[in-house]
Amino acid sequence: MAMRLLRVGPAGGERPALLEEDGTLRDLSALVPDVDGALLADPAALDRIRAAVGARVLPALDPSGLRIGPPVARIGKMVGIGVNYHDLVAEMRVGVPTEPVVFLKAPDTVVGPDDTVLVPRGSVRTDWEIELAVVIGRTVRYLDSDEEAMAAVAGYAVANDLSERDFHHGRAGQWGKGKNCETFNPLGPWLVTADAIPDPQDLRMRLWVNGRLAQDSGTDRMIFPVARLIRYLSHYMPLHPGDVINTGTPAGVALAQPEPKPYLRAGDVLELEIEGLGRQRQELKDA
Amino acid sequence: MAMRLLRVGPAGGERPALLEEDGTLRDLSALVPDVDGALLADPAALDRIRAAVGARVLPALDPSGLRIGPPVARIGKMVGIGVNYHDLVAEMRVGVPTEPVVFLKAPDTVVGPDDTVLVPRGSVRTDWEIELAVVIGRTVRYLDSDEEAMAAVAGYAVANDLSERDFHHGRAGQWGKGKNCETFNPLGPWLVTADAIPDPQDLRMRLWVNGRLAQDSGTDRMIFPVARLIRYLSHYMPLHPGDVINTGTPAGVALAQPEPKPYLRAGDVLELEIEGLGRQRQELKDA
Repeated sequence: MAMRLLRVGPAGGERPALLEEDGTLRDLSALVPDVDGALLADPAALDRIRAAVGARVLPALDPSGLRIGPPVARIGKMVGIGVNYHDLVAEMRVGVPTEPVVFLKAPDTVVGPDDTVLVPRGSVRTDWEIELAVVIGRTVRYLDSDEEAMAAVAGYAVANDLSERDFHHGRAGQWGKGKNCETFNPLGPWLVTADAIPDPQDLRMRLWVNGRLAQDSGTDRMIFPVARLIRYLSHYMPLHPGDVINTGTPAGVALAQPEPKPYLRAGDVLELEIEGLGRQRQELKDA
Repeated sequence: MAMRLLRVGPAGGERPALLEEDGTLRDLSALVPDVDGALLADPAALDRIRAAVGARVLPALDPSGLRIGPPVARIGKMVGIGVNYHDLVAEMRVGVPTEPVVFLKAPDTVVGPDDTVLVPRGSVRTDWEIELAVVIGRTVRYLDSDEEAMAAVAGYAVANDLSERDFHHGRAGQWGKGKNCETFNPLGPWLVTADAIPDPQDLRMRLWVNGRLAQDSGTDRMIFPVARLIRYLSHYMPLHPGDVINTGTPAGVALAQPEPKPYLRAGDVLELEIEGLGRQRQELKDA
């Protein structure tokens, strides 16, 4: 049974919860300690949640005024994939990569889906990137098949892989400086279990900047689909429960627009939505 | 009072410990839950350890047969600095970077100082890199001075920042593929508290491959010293207690040797030592 798992409460003090189909929010904290890799790797714990939902014994939570946190606690590592959409490649006039472009992102960039996003001091090129985030549910290494890869997926979520283009392109070295600024990875609102998403390559994804539609694409436009990414990555690093893969962003980022490019500033509002995975809304403020 | 903190026991089941000057190993598990960011950020907890050492009330541990784990649990993020030694720049015949070269490394690469290192499947260019690891003890952002930067240091350790040169240079994209293979970051044996290291830019560092001295340099050869690195990084990302910075490797890596370059293979043995920070020994095996 498909589930929408989430974590609600103040930053650092979130409790595990579940959103039912009718919109009722249920408290899971009597049942499991948190939504994290340990839970995702434990079919028995997930079954206990499913049974409790079926038996209608979970206490309801009043959602009014309740903050939604990131849907996964204690993310072990976050892997980013660069330049992974055909429409982005066309828009940026760059070549199609022959292999996935892989970078690492700090888990401490992850915030809730509606948390404030900070424009770093000195930034003039902070950019948005809607992405399908894949959450891993079992340890895998050196996978041979797409089937094994897909069996490692615990679920999916919306991610905003924010980037400071000047920090990561304009200065010496790797992308590390432009991807790891504070609050640069809103995640959620939910972790939607994999059984709810029969085809992760068939999800519409949209991002609005101050109400204007900026990104409007679909995961069918990925160059390397989810199964291929997981299989590929597993040959370079083990993947563990609670790891997150940001699978790349489609066309429509500020970087690709004509001058003056509409980079983010304090007061701007981002909204993001992926079909079936919910909606985010972030207001930008100065760090 | 300077301390050598460590974690001993089977992988995943380590307990906190302390190594006294006379070589006696003391169990800290009755005093603190672990050696991690929470402990390093808590002066009162560190003072409790110091008081217990002074009062000679800590139980001794029998070191025989006891594995040493990584000296820090729950590393939040690991930041790597590339091309940060003048002698490496000379040896590789590359330019001196004008700013630190920054990349992120997955905390799950971290293993104990004497744990087996795995040569990834398909690897023909696995290389060693001895580095001074800096462990952060307080949250800092946007630092203005070297003094503030140094005040954020909890301590130092030896790191081996292993790299697969073909994975990170020879294929599309960033360094992510060549830095995050399983076991690619032995750390330890100890976390030596900052008060024991009056000048982190004055430490001799040596690495031997199968008994042959391959790297022999000093932290005085860093292009961007520790204080500058912390100050610089704090403008791109917050640093938190338990974060680790690998500060770059000096000359003498396999990559810089004449052909045939002596890349690592199963059966090879690495030994690493930094003055005052202890010694590592790893045997290589095939993944």
